[in-house]
Amino acid sequence: MTGLVTLGEAMAVVASTEPGPLAPRTAARISFAGAEATVAIGVSRLGHPASWIGTVGSDAAGAMILGGLRAEGVDVGCARQEQGLPTGLMLRERRTADRTLAAYYRRGLAGSRLGPADVDEQLVAGARLLHVTGITPALSASARDAVRHAVRIARAAKVAVSLDVNYRSLLWSREEAAEELRPLVAEADVVFAGTDEASLFSTASTPEGLAGALAALGPSQAVIKLGAQGALAQVDGEVHVQDVVPVTAVDPIGAGDAFVAGYLAAQLSGAAPRERLRTAATCGAFAVAVHGDWEGLPRREELTLLAGDDVRR
Amino acid sequence: MTGLVTLGEAMAVVASTEPGPLAPRTAARISFAGAEATVAIGVSRLGHPASWIGTVGSDAAGAMILGGLRAEGVDVGCARQEQGLPTGLMLRERRTADRTLAAYYRRGLAGSRLGPADVDEQLVAGARLLHVTGITPALSASARDAVRHAVRIARAAKVAVSLDVNYRSLLWSREEAAEELRPLVAEADVVFAGTDEASLFSTASTPEGLAGALAALGPSQAVIKLGAQGALAQVDGEVHVQDVVPVTAVDPIGAGDAFVAGYLAAQLSGAAPRERLRTAATCGAFAVAVHGDWEGLPRREELTLLAGDDVRR
Amino acid sequence: MTGLVTLGEAMAVVASTEPGPLAPRTAARISFAGAEATVAIGVSRLGHPASWIGTVGSDAAGAMILGGLRAEGVDVGCARQEQGLPTGLMLRERRTADRTLAAYYRRGLAGSRLGPADVDEQLVAGARLLHVTGITPALSASARDAVRHAVRIARAAKVAVSLDVNYRSLLWSREEAAEELRPLVAEADVVFAGTDEASLFSTASTPEGLAGALAALGPSQAVIKLGAQGALAQVDGEVHVQDVVPVTAVDPIGAGDAFVAGYLAAQLSGAAPRERLRTAATCGAFAVAVHGDWEGLPRREELTLLAGDDVRR
Amino acid sequence: MTGLVTLGEAMAVVASTEPGPLAPRTAARISFAGAEATVAIGVSRLGHPASWIGTVGSDAAGAMILGGLRAEGVDVGCARQEQGLPTGLMLRERRTADRTLAAYYRRGLAGSRLGPADVDEQLVAGARLLHVTGITPALSASARDAVRHAVRIARAAKVAVSLDVNYRSLLWSREEAAEELRPLVAEADVVFAGTDEASLFSTASTPEGLAGALAALGPSQAVIKLGAQGALAQVDGEVHVQDVVPVTAVDPIGAGDAFVAGYLAAQLSGAAPRERLRTAATCGAFAVAVHGDWEGLPRREELTLLAGDDVRR
Amino acid sequence: MTGLVTLGEAMAVVASTEPGPLAPRTAARISFAGAEATVAIGVSRLGHPASWIGTVGSDAAGAMILGGLRAEGVDVGCARQEQGLPTGLMLRERRTADRTLAAYYRRGLAGSRLGPADVDEQLVAGARLLHVTGITPALSASARDAVRHAVRIARAAKVAVSLDVNYRSLLWSREEAAEELRPLVAEADVVFAGTDEASLFSTASTPEGLAGALAALGPSQAVIKLGAQGALAQVDGEVHVQDVVPVTAVDPIGAGDAFVAGYLAAQLSGAAPRERLRTAATCGAFAVAVHGDWEGLPRREELTLLAGDDVRR
Amino acid sequence: MTGLVTLGEAMAVVASTEPGPLAPRTAARISFAGAEATVAIGVSRLGHPASWIGTVGSDAAGAMILGGLRAEGVDVGCARQEQGLPTGLMLRERRTADRTLAAYYRRGLAGSRLGPADVDEQLVAGARLLHVTGITPALSASARDAVRHAVRIARAAKVAVSLDVNYRSLLWSREEAAEELRPLVAEADVVFAGTDEASLFSTASTPEGLAGALAALGPSQAVIKLGAQGALAQVDGEVHVQDVVPVTAVDPIGAGDAFVAGYLAAQLSGAAPRERLRTAATCGAFAVAVHGDWEGLPRREELTLLAGDDVRR
Repeated sequence: MTGLVTLGEAMAVVASTEPGPLAPRTAARISFAGAEATVAIGVSRLGHPASWIGTVGSDAAGAMILGGLRAEGVDVGCARQEQGLPTGLMLRERRTADRTLAAYYRRGLAGSRLGPADVDEQLVAGARLLHVTGITPALSASARDAVRHAVRIARAAKVAVSLDVNYRSLLWSREEAAEELRPLVAEADVVFAGTDEASLFSTASTPEGLAGALAALGPSQAVIKLGAQGALAQVDGEVHVQDVVPVTAVDPIGAGDAFVAGYLAAQLSGAAPRERLRTAATCGAFAVAVHGDWEGLPRREELTLLAGDDVRR
Repeated sequence: MTGLVTLGEAMAVVASTEPGPLAPRTAARISFAGAEATVAIGVSRLGHPASWIGTVGSDAAGAMILGGLRAEGVDVGCARQEQGLPTGLMLRERRTADRTLAAYYRRGLAGSRLGPADVDEQLVAGARLLHVTGITPALSASARDAVRHAVRIARAAKVAVSLDVNYRSLLWSREEAAEELRPLVAEADVVFAGTDEASLFSTASTPEGLAGALAALGPSQAVIKLGAQGALAQVDGEVHVQDVVPVTAVDPIGAGDAFVAGYLAAQLSGAAPRERLRTAATCGAFAVAVHGDWEGLPRREELTLLAGDDVRR
Repeated sequence: MTGLVTLGEAMAVVASTEPGPLAPRTAARISFAGAEATVAIGVSRLGHPASWIGTVGSDAAGAMILGGLRAEGVDVGCARQEQGLPTGLMLRERRTADRTLAAYYRRGLAGSRLGPADVDEQLVAGARLLHVTGITPALSASARDAVRHAVRIARAAKVAVSLDVNYRSLLWSREEAAEELRPLVAEADVVFAGTDEASLFSTASTPEGLAGALAALGPSQAVIKLGAQGALAQVDGEVHVQDVVPVTAVDPIGAGDAFVAGYLAAQLSGAAPRERLRTAATCGAFAVAVHGDWEGLPRREELTLLAGDDVRR
Repeated sequence: MTGLVTLGEAMAVVASTEPGPLAPRTAARISFAGAEATVAIGVSRLGHPASWIGTVGSDAAGAMILGGLRAEGVDVGCARQEQGLPTGLMLRERRTADRTLAAYYRRGLAGSRLGPADVDEQLVAGARLLHVTGITPALSASARDAVRHAVRIARAAKVAVSLDVNYRSLLWSREEAAEELRPLVAEADVVFAGTDEASLFSTASTPEGLAGALAALGPSQAVIKLGAQGALAQVDGEVHVQDVVPVTAVDPIGAGDAFVAGYLAAQLSGAAPRERLRTAATCGAFAVAVHGDWEGLPRREELTLLAGDDVRR
Repeated sequence: MTGLVTLGEAMAVVASTEPGPLAPRTAARISFAGAEATVAIGVSRLGHPASWIGTVGSDAAGAMILGGLRAEGVDVGCARQEQGLPTGLMLRERRTADRTLAAYYRRGLAGSRLGPADVDEQLVAGARLLHVTGITPALSASARDAVRHAVRIARAAKVAVSLDVNYRSLLWSREEAAEELRPLVAEADVVFAGTDEASLFSTASTPEGLAGALAALGPSQAVIKLGAQGALAQVDGEVHVQDVVPVTAVDPIGAGDAFVAGYLAAQLSGAAPRERLRTAATCGAFAVAVHGDWEGLPRREELTLLAGDDVRR
Repeated sequence: MTGLVTLGEAMAVVASTEPGPLAPRTAARISFAGAEATVAIGVSRLGHPASWIGTVGSDAAGAMILGGLRAEGVDVGCARQEQGLPTGLMLRERRTADRTLAAYYRRGLAGSRLGPADVDEQLVAGARLLHVTGITPALSASARDAVRHAVRIARAAKVAVSLDVNYRSLLWSREEAAEELRPLVAEADVVFAGTDEASLFSTASTPEGLAGALAALGPSQAVIKLGAQGALAQVDGEVHVQDVVPVTAVDPIGAGDAFVAGYLAAQLSGAAPRERLRTAATCGAFAVAVHGDWEGLPRREELTLLAGDDVRR
């Protein structure tokens, strides 16, 4: 029995390493990214079995992604290499020291081939948590059906469902997103959203109001991610706030997914809401202290590392 | 009046710098590529005005391509940044020290939007040479029409036409290519092809036979590129052979386009066939002695550099 | 008709990339720099035609500089490669994370050969702005004459003149600089100076006093650059202050020239003084957020980038 | 049921990337190595399940090794992180372009803690092949016992046994090695040795003689690795010779282990001796065409890559 | 006559350059480190002759260390290359932007062979200062005897003795350390300690109390290093406090040793206590503004560099 | 008493690391070079005391050079940092994988200030060998006088004199060089020259003839360096030939100076002519197998490294 199952798209990432506009000879690093993959890696590093379902190309990028997930202990037994379509790719220009611009190569590529048949019923039904995001339903009709199918299985098997709203304006309009995601929110046990994302479903103007509005749709846990202001959660009707964990940041990308990973891992460990939020914030801090989406995520024994000073022994 | 006009697609290139399979943290360099762009740069470096026509995205990659061409003195006054579509991209895995595998992100992207309206009649009619390749007609219907349109203008204005067959099996079948390109060969004054490409139009089994067969279709100059075996040309009925110029090679990519650039630049300088081939081979040697498609191409005063020893002064 | 014409020296820059004293194996990056070249690039990126006049060597560094300016869309039709003299060079030791020490190789080299004959009368008379700095007159007698000649042409043709005082203590004494530059200030429409530079011409002790004193010499716009304190300008008798735009800084070099570029580009766009200063400060912020003198300068559509958060779409 | 099981030590590798003596600021890459780990990775990449047994430290290097093996699909379910002892490490000075000098940090460290209890009887008995090397028995008494135990299990379960002699002069004398390894040779079905290693057991002076002498001790397959001269094998009494596969080499390290991986993977695929040797030589070529011990090893679909030219499609 | 003599262990350092967990392909830099070597380099850069005594291996790392010290002008005439044992090594994982984890390879290696016979009586007796740390006595019995021997010589020759407590929990317990180091404190003229280290000898709870307690054991100068809070010293009964010098920090490692180097160099220059502390704090700032333990240390003429702005001349 | 004394110029070297024309962002390495410095380093690494006399700037480059020489054990007690003039610099464009173009910044800079007063009489008279090159007399009148002075001291003290002709066409004409260097040849005991350089003094057309002609001018040992063809020496009337030592070459620069270092070190060791040439050729091979002028030179115990295979122990 696995701890967490998630499904979604993972893409190759090409990120320039020095700040500045792209120009011939620009140095870059290749890695991979995907909101759900980051959550699976984070949960696995914190000690809970995690499975990732998705479709990648049968190319070098696809092999890199599956190998990368395996390296992190994430089960990819239900992931698939699609023949004939390249793996999606994101080209990140590090425009200034702290501003990144991305171009996406994903439409109609391997990741969009995810479908209900990829969702192994036994795997989902046997998990303790199913995690989905609002990105996957926007990729293709089959991907949307895969998410719906997975949630249905989970609900039937009494597996807890987690949803990160993750609205992407390049993929669909706010209206489309709201229509598709509202039922998902309603079926989720825990939902994560930024204030802008929570506003898809509510006109509340404060984090607390937004959390309440989300919870009113169904979830017993509604977590509002507030970026540099930390986070606020309403859990079983009670409100908790969480500051960010201070750290020297080098790359803001991936903090939100790391936060979710920490929260869900702590939940799998049976931690109380306050501890879930603290672990979430710690994971967010690790993510921004290392380049890349998931590379910085902590292992369980590292969770205390940011607390102390940097000392020699 | 410009020397050479060419039109086609230019793409961003992400190439891993160390040999080996892609993996997270793989170092890469970003640059750009395109068979016609390489020819334009090569001709410009050798001292002849050159213009490139094409469509790129209005993104970081597109800006890099136009800036890169301008840096090389190539006129991009008729190139265009297309709104809303990303610039094409090629991901190159340097699998071993001398074997590279590429994944293409180009279908339906900005480069395929090239069309007849992009072909400035005055620019083409005022040039001394129009250079086209067999890649462009395979990109899209509008791109195919752009090539046809450009050739028509050139023929009408008595501008010499050059064609590099450049068959790409990922874009179309040999049958489709042969059907589309045969009329282009017939209208060209000079045609370049590898043996495999020349076989699209002939069943001859020797380089000399293939050159003769191509010339029989119309061109007064038919040049067969033989890779490590050099080249063979039939010019005005006479056959010339050319060895490769020996050099320490670091990257085989771009040699063929460099060869074409050298040949055409020498032709623009009024050189005799033997000299055209020698300049072509020298440019090919420069291309493989430097990483990247076009980065190594020689300036006129550098053409003699490979002949001598490396000495201090 | 071009927007801005400027003339001066551009040099190769070798900058160590890791903090610390130079030692064998120190990694470095090669680029180029020059106060006027930076202004030309900045104005061009913001959408106004710009021309740069100067002399570089006919060597690799000279070719790099001309290619680099062309890449940025800067017209170098009146720039010249001087035979037999190397292009100037600056060796920058990044001594600590935020302290850089430079050694200059410029005396008697190609850049000092700039002379009145290089100043194309038609080009200057047809521009909307002529920009000069206090560096060029200190390079050589002929360079000084070139600046005087350019200003004379501009004044005669009613082209606005901009002067950045840019005092360099390695090139001449404060007395020499004051004597040569005072008449230039008097002929300028807009003058830029740091407080230390403004003190060449005034004993005023406040930014406001210094701006007033400069304006009293002739210019209708006097702008005092205050580094981390922003800037203060007296424009047509009215005083404006501007804060710096906050940003993660990685390299303080080039901020002053970027500021000038932004100010002049906004002026060419017809912006009011307050908007000129805001654009200037934004350009300064971009410059320090990227390594190199000019590499970070913004394109027009990027001016708003620093305002928002770094978000995914 | 797994295809191949192997056991041994894996160490962190720190290798300087530029040729030359170590000096402050020398750039290096960190990876890992181990003869048996390389064989396991090679077999896994060629499509057969492989398991690696060994002990690493519970430190960053140990985590890197286990993650790296998992990424390659190698089962590490029976590998163990030892508390309190660091993972072994090898510091490689790339002294010239093709000469590497190594310093070893392994004595008494985590890898030497491997013992009989680590050898899962079910895992070994259920495999098709057990692969051991002459390095492991030299690490410690417990490691020697682990090898003996594994071979005993394999023999009892009729699992084929493969032995790579791999004599390491820093660990023991030729006399000690010969005494310990002779019984292992006798129990092996396939044995690999260089000429110098085969001379531990025979006074024959030719590769053919040495192969015959090894086979006379018991193994039905005796393979002599001849470096740049290829290899010679006596299989079921018949002699086969194999040339090296030509390739641009960048790093000679790891070729021997890659050869073994290719041979054994082909054997698992049921290939005839000639095909085993050809696959072995191809894997050796891949290994030297990429930096690192195992990084360059081919996947099954890549085996033909070195045969053709480097072409575009 | 030399200024400062010190003795101890120096090790190779392999430090990953990008934040994140170690993984195959992680980039690293190789250098060396050692608390006493850092002090010797710092004192030498500030203009005082310095000698370092220690044992390294006769391997690439040992040659790097001796060459590196010689490059800095440190006399290594009494240092020794030990045959047959590798030089110690430290593997640093830069886990996040500002947290580093280290694995040590030092037990029983070359550095532990330091013994009384290595301590040249004439060298120590002829120096103005002997500097020792609490690390060396913990390395081995012979190293402990070497320290005791050196202190005895110094005391007899009326050479001032400096001790940096430098407690390392990986090498010995607090009880062992306190027992061995207490007599050393008593014999020292100047002693440096962090608050945690000073607590080995006192139960005082404030920096001032700790300084007083240390001084009560014998030293006329007791300096408490307070990290980001600066330092506090009791010198001849008078208390002085010192803030840190603000700087952009990139690597916290080495700050404490740099502080000691600055303090002792100023003392050798005859500076008053307040100036010693100021120089110490400046050296600490330089150390954290450059990667590596000693690479950033200032030369005398650079001491003022951090005070001013970064300006062009 | 030192083994070898030499005097000359050492310059900073900035060398691009990737093949291709210089362009903004080109990566480079900083080091230093100088024919005489390379010889001094080579002799020191092979175990003989060596001293270098020269003038560098009091800047970062000058400090790097003196530190670099000290690191190699070269005595720089008589070298001097000149105030107010920068250290010379060489900018190397690695144009292709094996062709390098250099721009020099040396005229009138610190190195040209070398003068007779820098030549310590006691140091030269107490050495076993004085080595000079034909570069130094071309730098300035004072440098020429310094060479003459040093040779005069050596002759008077019966110290053997070595001359490497080292003609540099950028510094003077063949006629000037021949006139100045002929007397130096006459006073030398051993002279080194390429065929082109030997032709300054003779019309002989074969290496053997040139060696004989040089010897006829005075030296008992005349060595003709033949690049890829090895070398030929006439020693005491007997002719010896030497092949190159085969090696994977990465950088041809520095081979000639390395050859001289090896020859002279072997002479200092009392080796016979044949052994001197063999050591010389081995040093030349090491030089080209590592990037940089001197970085690759062997230590005594490494001389045999190139003979064997690259094997593991």
